[in-house]
Amino acid sequence: MSTSERLIESTRELLWERGYVGTSPKAILERSGAGQGSMYHHFRGKPDLALAAIRRTAEELRATAAGVLDGPGSPYDRIEAYLRRERDVLRGCPVGRLTMDPDVIASDELRAPVDETLDWLRERLAGLVEEAKEEGRFAPELDAEEIAATIVATVQGGYVLARASGSPAAFDAGIRGLLALLRTAR
Amino acid sequence: MSTSERLIESTRELLWERGYVGTSPKAILERSGAGQGSMYHHFRGKPDLALAAIRRTAEELRATAAGVLDGPGSPYDRIEAYLRRERDVLRGCPVGRLTMDPDVIASDELRAPVDETLDWLRERLAGLVEEAKEEGRFAPELDAEEIAATIVATVQGGYVLARASGSPAAFDAGIRGLLALLRTAR
Repeated sequence: MSTSERLIESTRELLWERGYVGTSPKAILERSGAGQGSMYHHFRGKPDLALAAIRRTAEELRATAAGVLDGPGSPYDRIEAYLRRERDVLRGCPVGRLTMDPDVIASDELRAPVDETLDWLRERLAGLVEEAKEEGRFAPELDAEEIAATIVATVQGGYVLARASGSPAAFDAGIRGLLALLRTAR
Repeated sequence: MSTSERLIESTRELLWERGYVGTSPKAILERSGAGQGSMYHHFRGKPDLALAAIRRTAEELRATAAGVLDGPGSPYDRIEAYLRRERDVLRGCPVGRLTMDPDVIASDELRAPVDETLDWLRERLAGLVEEAKEEGRFAPELDAEEIAATIVATVQGGYVLARASGSPAAFDAGIRGLLALLRTAR
């Protein structure tokens, strides 16, 4: 792996574990094994390196989600597969957790990939909800964009419940509750 | 306000704004106007002060939620009132946001009031869902604890969506979607 790659991958890990505020340039250098000169040769500083790291994490999340959302089955099956897909629940969402980071939210540049990813996810899910409505799977009065926002919010909030309790059980309960509501929403 | 009070209130503000990792003892001293000796006279250090601050924030959140959950109306009305109550959405939840803080999650002592508060909220909501089921307002096959987890997760995840987009609209959409699902879940 090139030094630039090692810097980006180490920053991605640290952002997921400790957030932006909790990630010092020193910690990035230690984890990547890169020297300070090398870091400033490849990147203008912590914000620049974090932006590259966040963009890559956002791309990976989209690719993983697309693998399920574009997968086999009816629109409803794919929504269910998205909700049931295996997750490293106690680590939280590497993209969503950044919204609790004051320095990410204060920077339009760092916030942009976070916003775009969650927005993309809501739009893809809204498309599937709309298709499921056309197939008669959901009541016509349901608003597809609202249901999509509820789906993404339940997943993101599920991480909060799991991390608070130190167990994935609360995440799973929230997802099962949403699936039960979606099943009755014909 | 006593120095001890000023220290706790300043720590509460900083924890909400910047999290535990992002709050330095120096920032607490600056905001409270207290001296270092005074801080160490009242508290053993940042974890001890943070614990007092988190406990108080947790108590306030419970009191605010109880005001709606124990309020007038049917069990269903009170669930709806909880979901619709006014919130400072872009600031996020002062309790839930702490779950994204690695040093809070790593400490059983600091995590306890966060866990207890979200657990209490889920139990109170589960009780109302159970009552609403008995009144025939929800389908009998719905699991009250799962629906309660979905309700709390949607609120917590709604903050994530709002902060990502820089607007409360995504929070509101997620809540409206959940209310639509709850309305059809008879």
